Amino acid sequence: MTRAQLIEQIRLKKSYLCVGLDSDIAKIPRHLLSLPDPVFEFNRQLIDATSDCCVSYKINTAFYEARGSRGWETLEKTVAYIPKTHFRIADAKRGDIGNTSAQYARAFFETLGFDAVTVAPYMGEDSVRPFLEYRDKWTIVLGLTSNTGASDFELQPSRQGYVYEKVLEACCRWGSPENLMFVIGATQASWFEHVRKLTPEHFYLVPGVGQQGGSLQEISQKAMNRDVGILVNNSRAIIFASSAEDFAIQAGRAARLCQQEMAGYL
Amino acid sequence: MTRAQLIEQIRLKKSYLCVGLDSDIAKIPRHLLSLPDPVFEFNRQLIDATSDCCVSYKINTAFYEARGSRGWETLEKTVAYIPKTHFRIADAKRGDIGNTSAQYARAFFETLGFDAVTVAPYMGEDSVRPFLEYRDKWTIVLGLTSNTGASDFELQPSRQGYVYEKVLEACCRWGSPENLMFVIGATQASWFEHVRKLTPEHFYLVPGVGQQGGSLQEISQKAMNRDVGILVNNSRAIIFASSAEDFAIQAGRAARLCQQEMAGYL
Repeated sequence: MTRAQLIEQIRLKKSYLCVGLDSDIAKIPRHLLSLPDPVFEFNRQLIDATSDCCVSYKINTAFYEARGSRGWETLEKTVAYIPKTHFRIADAKRGDIGNTSAQYARAFFETLGFDAVTVAPYMGEDSVRPFLEYRDKWTIVLGLTSNTGASDFELQPSRQGYVYEKVLEACCRWGSPENLMFVIGATQASWFEHVRKLTPEHFYLVPGVGQQGGSLQEISQKAMNRDVGILVNNSRAIIFASSAEDFAIQAGRAARLCQQEMAGYL
Repeated sequence: MTRAQLIEQIRLKKSYLCVGLDSDIAKIPRHLLSLPDPVFEFNRQLIDATSDCCVSYKINTAFYEARGSRGWETLEKTVAYIPKTHFRIADAKRGDIGNTSAQYARAFFETLGFDAVTVAPYMGEDSVRPFLEYRDKWTIVLGLTSNTGASDFELQPSRQGYVYEKVLEACCRWGSPENLMFVIGATQASWFEHVRKLTPEHFYLVPGVGQQGGSLQEISQKAMNRDVGILVNNSRAIIFASSAEDFAIQAGRAARLCQQEMAGYL
């Protein structure tokens, strides 16, 4: 998916919502557990119920890998089920030496068909570049994350600003706003104005709104650019809105509330 | 596997060799491709041919994920096939917010049964801790890696030394030499004396010997401690020693040469 197509979807739906499919089998409604692939059935119903309200789905690979190759099969079926109008993110936080990163890029872009993958920058340029080499695919590099551990290394002062600033600056030399986004956590709202100055054109994937405590209003005011420039992820508050048989209906309602609030900020 | 058990295996075999199963289906011998699971057959014969000479196997998850759920099945069969006397490393470079890292820890330690997993430290403490909570399991944190990109962030000077030094120092507060190792790249040989001063007790997983250019002699002299303290990985020079039907025999010979050189340094 190109940048222009993504922006078009956002304008069309008046939404920059990304629904996070952190589909933990221990938390899905009990009545699904007797089905052959309970997590896929959970995801399928969620996608049907929320696709009108969101522009993106983010699959957190950890929750699938925890179930081994069966989980990986569920992941394959889920990404194939997401409509092609939606921006499909593998939240995988990969990154390794060049020839290995090339294999990860192949896994997520070719074998699985995602539009985007999240990448951890610690190992530097040759660990990030193989992802950037795919036309119309996106690399979403960890910038400033939403967790408490962000202070340990990302917010360490270096001679040229914080470590995460160095990451933003270096990655902007390797990729462009047409193929590179950053993860910027919603719980770091006070940082958004500064981050936006450093990277005025790039899209951000913003996790941490909702259960992690970030405010959608504050993020939207501080982080948007003229092309909207943000995808705000919400996982648990939508997908686990109800644990009963009406889970999909409740997820759809929660997603609609998000979308309506977003429409107000656009 | 405990630290004492690992050291016992090293003394017994006079080897600190880790064989890296970066089993790229595009590079394995052609005659295997007609079998139902060519990569597993490749790995099985390699393990049979090298297990006398090495104390560890490292599975690079990227090469398996590139083949989707079939690749993940091969990974499951391979780790189950490795003898329990051998230290089984998932070279997966995972790391995410706490609840997600907990799922990755579950994937590699419980579902797959690895002894160790490599972890990327960028997101800080809560992204590393869930791996450290498993008894008799190991977290191998990226310290100073063997690739050119190591200079981009790892070797950025901060107020308290380089970023990678900050990583070593912080991780040593979270884990102990009984459950924490570091990846220290062999192509950074000139750094080893310094790194050893910072972390005198910890084991290092050392990639980059062989095709990436690191010298086994130099690493061994500079990085060993009184408990040996290093596992040196060799992937391509062993597993792709021959692409003909004798590939396992040639891999066994290459591994034996490594082991004999190591015996001289012990």
